[in-house]
Parts: sequence; C-alpha cells; structure tokens
Amino acid sequence: MVKRIIVIGANAAGVEAASAARKKDHTAEITLITDEKTAGYSRCGLPFVIGGQIPSFKDLIVFSQAYFKMMKLNLKTETRVTAINTKDKTVTVVAKTGVTETLQYDSLVIATGAYAFTPPIKGSDKQGIHSLRTIEDGEHILQAVNKGAKSAVIMGAGLIGLETGVALRERGLKVTVVEMLPQILPQMLDADMAQIVKEHLEAHGMCIFTEKAVEEFLGEDKVLAIMAGGEKIAADLFLSAFGVRANTKLAVEAGIPLGESKGIKTNARMETEVKDVYAIGDCAETPHLITHKPVCPQLGTVAVKQGRVAGINAGGGYAIFPGVLGSAVTRLFDIEAGVTGLTEAAAKRAGIEVITGVISSKTRAAYYPNALPIKVKLVIERESQRIVGAQIVGGEEVTQRINALSLAIQKGMTVRELAKADTAYAPPLNETWEPMILAAEMVLMKLR
Amino acid sequence: MVKRIIVIGANAAGVEAASAARKKDHTAEITLITDEKTAGYSRCGLPFVIGGQIPSFKDLIVFSQAYFKMMKLNLKTETRVTAINTKDKTVTVVAKTGVTETLQYDSLVIATGAYAFTPPIKGSDKQGIHSLRTIEDGEHILQAVNKGAKSAVIMGAGLIGLETGVALRERGLKVTVVEMLPQILPQMLDADMAQIVKEHLEAHGMCIFTEKAVEEFLGEDKVLAIMAGGEKIAADLFLSAFGVRANTKLAVEAGIPLGESKGIKTNARMETEVKDVYAIGDCAETPHLITHKPVCPQLGTVAVKQGRVAGINAGGGYAIFPGVLGSAVTRLFDIEAGVTGLTEAAAKRAGIEVITGVISSKTRAAYYPNALPIKVKLVIERESQRIVGAQIVGGEEVTQRINALSLAIQKGMTVRELAKADTAYAPPLNETWEPMILAAEMVLMKLR
Repeated sequence: MVKRIIVIGANAAGVEAASAARKKDHTAEITLITDEKTAGYSRCGLPFVIGGQIPSFKDLIVFSQAYFKMMKLNLKTETRVTAINTKDKTVTVVAKTGVTETLQYDSLVIATGAYAFTPPIKGSDKQGIHSLRTIEDGEHILQAVNKGAKSAVIMGAGLIGLETGVALRERGLKVTVVEMLPQILPQMLDADMAQIVKEHLEAHGMCIFTEKAVEEFLGEDKVLAIMAGGEKIAADLFLSAFGVRANTKLAVEAGIPLGESKGIKTNARMETEVKDVYAIGDCAETPHLITHKPVCPQLGTVAVKQGRVAGINAGGGYAIFPGVLGSAVTRLFDIEAGVTGLTEAAAKRAGIEVITGVISSKTRAAYYPNALPIKVKLVIERESQRIVGAQIVGGEEVTQRINALSLAIQKGMTVRELAKADTAYAPPLNETWEPMILAAEMVLMKLR
Repeated sequence: MVKRIIVIGANAAGVEAASAARKKDHTAEITLITDEKTAGYSRCGLPFVIGGQIPSFKDLIVFSQAYFKMMKLNLKTETRVTAINTKDKTVTVVAKTGVTETLQYDSLVIATGAYAFTPPIKGSDKQGIHSLRTIEDGEHILQAVNKGAKSAVIMGAGLIGLETGVALRERGLKVTVVEMLPQILPQMLDADMAQIVKEHLEAHGMCIFTEKAVEEFLGEDKVLAIMAGGEKIAADLFLSAFGVRANTKLAVEAGIPLGESKGIKTNARMETEVKDVYAIGDCAETPHLITHKPVCPQLGTVAVKQGRVAGINAGGGYAIFPGVLGSAVTRLFDIEAGVTGLTEAAAKRAGIEVITGVISSKTRAAYYPNALPIKVKLVIERESQRIVGAQIVGGEEVTQRINALSLAIQKGMTVRELAKADTAYAPPLNETWEPMILAAEMVLMKLR
C-alpha cells in the first residue's frame, strides 16, 4: 500500500522533511500543508528584503513550484490545519475557500514553527504592532516604510529585533531599540561581548535602551507611542521582537505532549511521544549537547537537519538527530557576532563552573590592508578543561571560527588541545597566531 | 649563574623562541643572530609588497628595535654563524666588519630557516635568477619591476611561486608559470581542486604550463630566456620557485643529526639529538599528526608555535609541540585555497585507503548578493571513517573552514559526526546547509 505522509508546515523544516521522505520512499503520497500563501522560502532572509539587500520577497523562495512538482510533493497553501486526530490518524484542514477536509496519514510531521510573542502589556490589543515572521509580515513593514514611516521602535534586542532594526536604519528610519534586560542579544552573548555590538549599532545611529521594559502601548485604535521605563517614545512603526514561542496549539489539542522547554517533546529520531507523529523545527524540543537539557533552539540550521532526520524516518529509513549547541551568527552593519555552546552566563545558570579567556586581535596580518578587529571569548569547564562555549565578535571571518569551535566542542576538545592546534594562515586571511588559539592561551594563563 | 641562550635566526621561529625564553627566564642573556640586515619581519608578507598591497618592505617588520630592547634581547644583525661547537657549547660568528667572535651558550636554538632551491639545470650559474626569501630578494625583484621589466617567468607552481606570480601580474607584467608536475600547487591540492585555481589564474591573464620542466637557462652572463619542454620562453625577470630546502649546513657540520625528511631531527620538546640544542621552524622536522612520519612543513604558523615551545624549554620551562597537519591557505587574485591534513594523493602515497566527498556550494544564501562559489573536498580514511584531510577552494571564508576541519581531524572526528555537526548560518554569511556538512554527506552516500 502507498504510504501517506503529511507534513504540517512548508518552510525550512517541513520542505526538508518532505524531500527526505521522498528520497526514501519514491511512491509515498506526501502532502505539505501551510496556512501561508508562500511555501519554501527563507524566513531568515526577511530582514534583508526590508534592508534592501535583496530586491523582493519572492527572491527568498528557495523551493519553487517546479521543485514541489519535480519531487511529487502535494502542496496545499493557504490551508489551515484545525485538528489532528492521532487515534484515527487524520488531520482536518480548512482551505482558503472555507472547504473543510479530513486527510488520512500513516506518518505525520509537525513543523508548525513559532510565533512572535507579545507580552500582555496594556494596550497590546491595539492595531499597528508589527512582527516579522512571514512574507506578509515583511510586506506590511515595507508598506509602512514606503508610506513614509520615519521612525521605528523595536521592542526586544534579540536577533530578529536587531536584524530588522538595522534593516530599517538602512532604509533611513530613526530606530530605537527597547530591551528589558541589561544588555542586547541576551540569549546569544555575554554582556561584555554584547557591549561591542551595542556600540557598533549606536555608531550607526541606532538608539538603544537597555533595562527598559515596555509598560504600555499608547494611541487610540492604533499604537502611536510606547511607554517604556517611564518614558514616552513615539514612532511611525512598532515591531514586537520580545521573543518567539513554539507553535504547539495543534499538538497540545491533539494530546501530543510538550517537554520542559514548552516545545513538542521528541526523541533522537524526532518522534513525538505519539506513534507515527514527528515534530521538527521551531516547535520541537531537542537536547542541548552540553547541558543535556531539552531546548527549543529555533534556528534554521537545526530546522533543516531535524527535517531531514524526520523525513528519512517517516519515509521508512533510520536517522537520528544528536542535539544542538545553538551555534548562531548574525551580521549587523559591518560587525559579525556569533556563538556556539554556552555563554558564561548560561553555563553559570546551568551550574557549570567555568573559566573564560578573552582576546582581541585582527582578522589579517596587522600590516595587511583592512585588517579588522576581532574578539574571541572562550568558555571552559574548569574541571574537565573542555571547551563548552565560545563567542566571537568581529569584522569578518566570524562564522567559520564559530563552526570550528562548535566542532571542537562536539569532540570534547580541551583548552590545552586548542592552544596547540594546527591552524592555517596567510597575511591577507589571518594572523600568524590564530585568535582562537590566543584565547585558549589566555585561559591557560589563568589555570597555571 | 646567568643562563646564556643563543638563537640562530631572527624571524618567525627565532624571535618567538627568544621572547618565550625571556618570559620564562627574566635574567638570562639571550642573543639572536641573523645574517640579514633586518630581523623580526614576516617573510609571508613579501609577495604583497611586490603586489603593491603593502607600501613598503619596512611595513613587514613585526618586531621593532624597541621590541628587542624592551624584551632585553641582544640582536646581532648582518652577522653570520660560521660554526657550532656542541662540545664546547660555542658558536663562532663573523660580523659584517669581518670581526670573528666565539660566543658561549648554555642553550642553543637553531632557526636557520630554508632556502630557495634551484636544481642543477644547465646555465643555472648565470646571473639574474631571482628567488623570494628575504627583504633583499624582494627589493631586487621590485627594482627589476621598477626598471621596466615587462614579463616574468616563474619556475615552480607552489605557494611562493604563485603568490609572487600573482603579485607581478598585479604590477602589470606578463607572467608565465612553468611547472614540471601535471598540476599547480602539487604539495597543497589534488589535481581536481588545483584545476579550479589554475583556471582562475588564467582568467586573470597568467599563462601556466604544467608538465614542462626547465631544461636550460639561456643568455650570456645573464639569463634572458629558459628552455622548457623544448620551448624557448624569454622574459625580463626569472623567479626560482622550484621549492625550498631546510638550511641544515651548520647543523650537519656540527654533527647534529638530520631526520628522514632532511630537516634537523627533533623530539616533542623541539630538542635535537644533541643536548641543549633545539631546532625550530623551516629547518626542523616534526611529526605529521596523521601519518606519524617526520615532515618539514615550512609554514609560519608552525614556526611560531615551535619557537614558543623551544623558547619555554630553553628558558627552563616545559612545553611540547604535538606535530602538524600542514594546514595552509593562500589567496590568489579573488580565490582562496586551503588544505589541512592529507590530500587524496598524499594519503595514497602514505598507503592510507581513503574515500572522498566533493561538493560545490555558495558562501552565502543563494539569494543573497555576492554569494561566491566554494568547493569542499574531504578525504576520509575508509576503515575508521575518520577525516584525514580536506581541501577548500572558494571566493571567501576558506581559512576558517580549514581550521574547523583541522580541529575536527585533530580530535578524530568521523565523517558521520561531521555530517550531523551543529553549524552556524545567517543569509549574508553562509548557506543553511554548511558546505563542509554537505561534503560529509557526499562521502556517506558512497559508504552506504
């Protein structure tokens, strides 16, 4: 009999799952369902269309209609799943037309993603609070810009908030960022590293308030200003970037258990606690490779990898996803910032005794033109002397250093091993002493 | 009693050794001896002064006179060591003035480097065959360019040959490269990867002949042309870039044994077979971390690391140098090429059964402006499935990928582990699927 595989969600995780299932099972009937107009696009690219680096939201479509056709994936857009029945193995959907349908599955993959969360602040029911999660969201923001918005308030200094803030600044808007915590990028960087990024953003004309909570949205029907830390800040555009939450409503209603992190609980095969149901991407929880605690990393790289694993399993194969280090990177104006593993703060929260090493260096030989500053911070578990985290902020070549340290962490490299590691150099491309190695030596000096 | 430490050679390895010894022993009498006019400069930077990226050879001086003074290092420039006596623990030197002196040491560090080797080809005693090893060499080449040289022949398509060839091309010269072997960069890349670099060089107007040996230097006193593969190639400038050889004459005359690789034999503390004598940098051999065979990697990164180890040991401390993977990288016009560990060809020569995976990808999200091509080749030991080598050729972000794979190799990462590794991404900085991971998947497809 032909296997029926249904995937709810048709972006990074969902499309990857459907594609992997198809590669395993050439005859399966594979259906992808999304309530969005567009499928198979890169959410991570949205800020760069707003910033103008990418001409159109259409350019973000990574998987075209032709791809879905070629892979024989039955794609239903603008179709909302209203219920999952794990006993009968069905999902109920309602199309844009209003027509309701019940679809049978043998394997179900939940890739419902996450949503921008706005806390229950006074006035948060008013109109005009944007978020940036979908192409529609992006279009609304761009419309506001094109209609002449001159200023924006970004609520939350996480990755999406700052990337969108930078994009709006690049469009010429006056941009104010309001963050409740004492630093920007609190999930990603320690305060000392975040400070460098903050100064860079300020040097590019962004106004950043930390330790300022949004207390109220002001205006009639439409938000015209916020109150934050007792101060009134008016703007033409408001972006909710407080954070994202896993989209688990459907799963919860279907009795599919969540885990500690409020994501859908999964095992290494990306199976939920319910037979033949998988969860992947931003809605799913997965173990952290250092703390071994479940987390919801909500990263595109994780989504596609989990998607592939779930797809192979749903298609009758066997694959496992080992867990995450939360490796992430961003570029804001001319600065790059990245993280892998635990920050010093996160390690302390997890009860891990750590020692750190920080070094400032250059990205090229000091005498070579356009050598840019770079700062590396290593977080080392004191007893084992193993690397458990790293943060890098610099002008270039940050991403692959993060990947290097991610691989090192995954293989249990100690700081002593890193200090002796074999690295590559040429004057236009690096310093003779690789900054990661110098940071390791800084740690060793403390250990002596 | 005050310890007397003598270091022969005062560039990457030598200065690092002297500095490390000083940090360990604040009272030692430390003397650095070089026959060159200038000490403490970056040899690797020489081609970029010729290319014009760096204004002057003086800019390559990393360690100034003030540094040597601050570190209380007694620097003797333009002073040639004529003999080492390991019984009496002396070195005999002759200064520029002709004055001979015998210096006593308690510890001796030999950092005599390497020299450009020209095979005994007919006419190789004629004038006008340049090499590029010292600032003086660089000045001679630049003088020839400034006097109106319009064309150059580079003999040897290794790193230094190509970097200098590119520099001369950037100065507007017609550049012809003649390589005896069937590919360029034969020490660094496999033929398939080298081909991409060759095409890039040709696209920038360089003329590259492979499988053409230099048979004769033509001209009266001065070389005016070469015969190569039966063809006469005339030029205004000739560069010998056949290869470099360890400078071991002094050591051999002093009875200090060489190893299999023709470098000075050392142990992990960088001690030679003779008590209190160390050898470091381009003249010293060191174990390869994969083959466990001794090699002479002749790389700046290795020189400084070995220098630091020898300096700590000579200064009364304890440090070891674990060995090398030969990680190296270069930038030629707009292309970067790097290697770590064994090439496929080198693995086969070493009798290691390998399987490879090659992938072509982009350096940024495909939709992001200026995404550049990148190609990753992994070399995997078939039985253990461990990574034993990698080569990358691409438009950007090659160096740190090489470092990432170098760390992975050093920790014994298998191709399966790499395929599941946690990596970082953002549209301006990487593809969602890291190319190194895709290359690992290509290998796994062959293993299935």
